[in-house]
Amino acid sequence: MKYPEILSISPAPAEFVYAADDTILYALGLGAGGKPDELPFVYEKNLRALPTFAVLMGGGASDFITQGGIDSTRMVHGEQRLTIHKPLPATGRMLTTSRLLGVVDKGKEKGALVIVESAASDAVSGALHATTVITLFCRGDGGFGGPSDGDLPLHAIPDMPHDLDVTIQTLPQQAAIYRLSGDKNPLHIDPEMATSVGFPGPILHGLCTYGIACRAIMQAYCDNDPARIARLDMRFSAPVYPGEAITTRVWRDGSELSFECLIATRGATVIRNGLCVLKD
Amino acid sequence: MKYPEILSISPAPAEFVYAADDTILYALGLGAGGKPDELPFVYEKNLRALPTFAVLMGGGASDFITQGGIDSTRMVHGEQRLTIHKPLPATGRMLTTSRLLGVVDKGKEKGALVIVESAASDAVSGALHATTVITLFCRGDGGFGGPSDGDLPLHAIPDMPHDLDVTIQTLPQQAAIYRLSGDKNPLHIDPEMATSVGFPGPILHGLCTYGIACRAIMQAYCDNDPARIARLDMRFSAPVYPGEAITTRVWRDGSELSFECLIATRGATVIRNGLCVLKD
Repeated sequence: MKYPEILSISPAPAEFVYAADDTILYALGLGAGGKPDELPFVYEKNLRALPTFAVLMGGGASDFITQGGIDSTRMVHGEQRLTIHKPLPATGRMLTTSRLLGVVDKGKEKGALVIVESAASDAVSGALHATTVITLFCRGDGGFGGPSDGDLPLHAIPDMPHDLDVTIQTLPQQAAIYRLSGDKNPLHIDPEMATSVGFPGPILHGLCTYGIACRAIMQAYCDNDPARIARLDMRFSAPVYPGEAITTRVWRDGSELSFECLIATRGATVIRNGLCVLKD
Repeated sequence: MKYPEILSISPAPAEFVYAADDTILYALGLGAGGKPDELPFVYEKNLRALPTFAVLMGGGASDFITQGGIDSTRMVHGEQRLTIHKPLPATGRMLTTSRLLGVVDKGKEKGALVIVESAASDAVSGALHATTVITLFCRGDGGFGGPSDGDLPLHAIPDMPHDLDVTIQTLPQQAAIYRLSGDKNPLHIDPEMATSVGFPGPILHGLCTYGIACRAIMQAYCDNDPARIARLDMRFSAPVYPGEAITTRVWRDGSELSFECLIATRGATVIRNGLCVLKD
């Protein structure tokens, strides 16, 4: 990492234009559209954008990776946060402004955190729709001499039995569909590439699992109304393989839902520290 | 139907430009990509176009429908034929020239046939890749005073037990994925629209079933090599509903395969008179 130079990188606003087919393709990438109650996410008539579609509008993290000299081959997506200020339109043109919230030096052995915030606003009206925060865990960049703290606080899951769980089956071709929305990293489709970096096979995009967790919550608590999602934060803790069934466990406390995601068949927890805040 | 005016309609060549994502999206629309042996159809590295992708390059039939005064609300896709002269490139720019092969008057009660041939050639090299023939069954256009014969001959299925069958499960959201390749007819996704024209629910695109039959044959006889498919002709005989499993029955006679498709759970034959010719 180029430190302290990374602190002064200031990406130009990124434009994200999307038509109905883009909104639909994203929803299909999350496995939506197989049931009538999810029809509004995959049909241009009365189309509604899924809240997590906002994470594709980030754009700005790549400037920090490239210009900041991050070793992207050893970088993983650590945490994702999303605040929806105003539901996303079904089609639109967004301008996204990104800034560095901080870098954290966890030491040579562990790595570094790079935390980037992006704010997506309607390019015409200027209305702020979504703020996303991505935490990149850069395993090859520890020991750069920066601050050793500055991690964002993680939501604590209640120490009690969960209230409800929802299982969503992914498709063997789930990553192949999801990647058409833009993240073409071969790790998610190329068996040789995946084994070369130590996985038994291609892994599902973390943000696909993230979107599936949101679908699970929307089904269970929101009558599939995307306008009910105000916030969705969590940490990625293990890979998911396409074709696995993802179980989302939820603890409810009023409008605040704590959640975790697991793959029951192999006892792996793949999302931890989940927090979803609902709007009334 | 405007007869004999329809006979002199001469559509301008249609351009069909496709990138890797288009080729991949088409394959995903047929349900491909869930198994390693179909990876070349959904991954841009060593990407191969499925032979039936050529049916999207037709383009020209729409001119005969609109300018020919066909009642498109009562029109159904009757038959599809495809001859591959040279395998489709993974990405490309095609020019398609279409001409009317004939119209047949089946009488006021039954309707009319409109038969259109389209030839797709590489826009740069001029090489002819595919010829498609579509037969539209226009139920609202019979009795226009045209010739009562001129049907293309239908392939006869051997009167003996079939050699092999392959069952491919479709997804509940199969039509939602397939329609992103261009055919946005609401009949394939809108429950209200589908029931208003007498179906219990949205039906799968006929050409999606057609492509799935080709996948079945390629799996069973071609090691999934698209270059082995030289010809694929058949007649649509009943609708398929997304989520059903399509069984393709094959009778082999050297390089000539006869086939039918059926939905075993309800005993419906959905494709008849199928003929697939293999290249060595």
